[in-house]
Amino acid sequence: MVKQVRAARTRQALILAAAEVFADEGYAQATLPVISKRAGVSTGALHFHFPSKDVLAREVEGAAADSVEKMAERCLSSADTLLQSLVNATCRLLAAVATDSVVRAGFKLGTDPSRNSGAGVPQWWCAWVHDLVVQAQDAGELAADVAPEDAAAAVVAATVGFETLGEVDGEWLSRERVARFWSFILPRMAASPQTISVRPVKPMGEVDSE
Amino acid sequence: MVKQVRAARTRQALILAAAEVFADEGYAQATLPVISKRAGVSTGALHFHFPSKDVLAREVEGAAADSVEKMAERCLSSADTLLQSLVNATCRLLAAVATDSVVRAGFKLGTDPSRNSGAGVPQWWCAWVHDLVVQAQDAGELAADVAPEDAAAAVVAATVGFETLGEVDGEWLSRERVARFWSFILPRMAASPQTISVRPVKPMGEVDSE
Repeated sequence: MVKQVRAARTRQALILAAAEVFADEGYAQATLPVISKRAGVSTGALHFHFPSKDVLAREVEGAAADSVEKMAERCLSSADTLLQSLVNATCRLLAAVATDSVVRAGFKLGTDPSRNSGAGVPQWWCAWVHDLVVQAQDAGELAADVAPEDAAAAVVAATVGFETLGEVDGEWLSRERVARFWSFILPRMAASPQTISVRPVKPMGEVDSE
Repeated sequence: MVKQVRAARTRQALILAAAEVFADEGYAQATLPVISKRAGVSTGALHFHFPSKDVLAREVEGAAADSVEKMAERCLSSADTLLQSLVNATCRLLAAVATDSVVRAGFKLGTDPSRNSGAGVPQWWCAWVHDLVVQAQDAGELAADVAPEDAAAAVVAATVGFETLGEVDGEWLSRERVARFWSFILPRMAASPQTISVRPVKPMGEVDSE
């Protein structure tokens, strides 16, 4: 039992270390010795848990997608409208990119041509936003003359742009910046923009007072 | 004279090869031997022209910024309004990202944390879009309730997002996608959206029939 706990901890430490190295250096540049050193385990232990860099990257992408999916579900269940969930999820996603190496790595791996798994956070986010905006149209939340796929594409592109620009200037990931994006977009996108709060929400994991 | 022409050609070949390698592999992963091999010149010739990878990257960034700046100037001088120039410049920038390795490399180097020069294409684009939108407000082209910095930030973030997503899915760089982005944004942003054409323009260098 103690052995199992230790193995699970080593595995978690390796996923976290790999996420940090993938996020900082990119997939192609990352090496297994650097990852095992950062995790404080031997290369042998790394190979025991993850036979290759590809397997490790898939594990990081899976952990990032799980984390973002749970966050998005919390936003859906805690907000009154679909568009309010979308605004909250965007704020929380970018807060997670700023503070959580696993989410940041999941984002970067998904747009890294040297990897190109098609299973990263951006791909998941793209599908989630599209589905939500289509549902918002069905629920009468979308402005009448807006095509849901165009609105979804604009939101996804801007989110990915905030993440990319945030790589070299953290200001792009600030809650204030995201709130101002929504202040600009919502009067075009929403049937009742005045009912949606763009006030930045608390980061992931904290209780949302809204 | 023949010697000078040959030296200039070698220099150009090295800049193009470096752009391709930086765009494909990122700054950290790129090596001088790979670049000189791709250019078909010796490592000695590369070092004669460019003493370090940093100098070569700055040269690529400068060439990309020049190219994008000229394109933007052409858009300004050929359109009737500032917002029409912005729409045309966005289309042409993303077309250039899809087809021109130097522009693509300039974009990537500007958001590469392992480089972080602050002098890449995204930084130039950010400043240019901001200035243009402020001028558009002064000229009465902006919708009355739009803050120019918010509109500029949304356009810049979306453009960078299109570029990042285009790394793994070229559809994001298509003229159709960019035109639909503008169809979504303009009714919010422009005082007279109906006067602005979102019809994709011809690629850079071709004569614009509009």
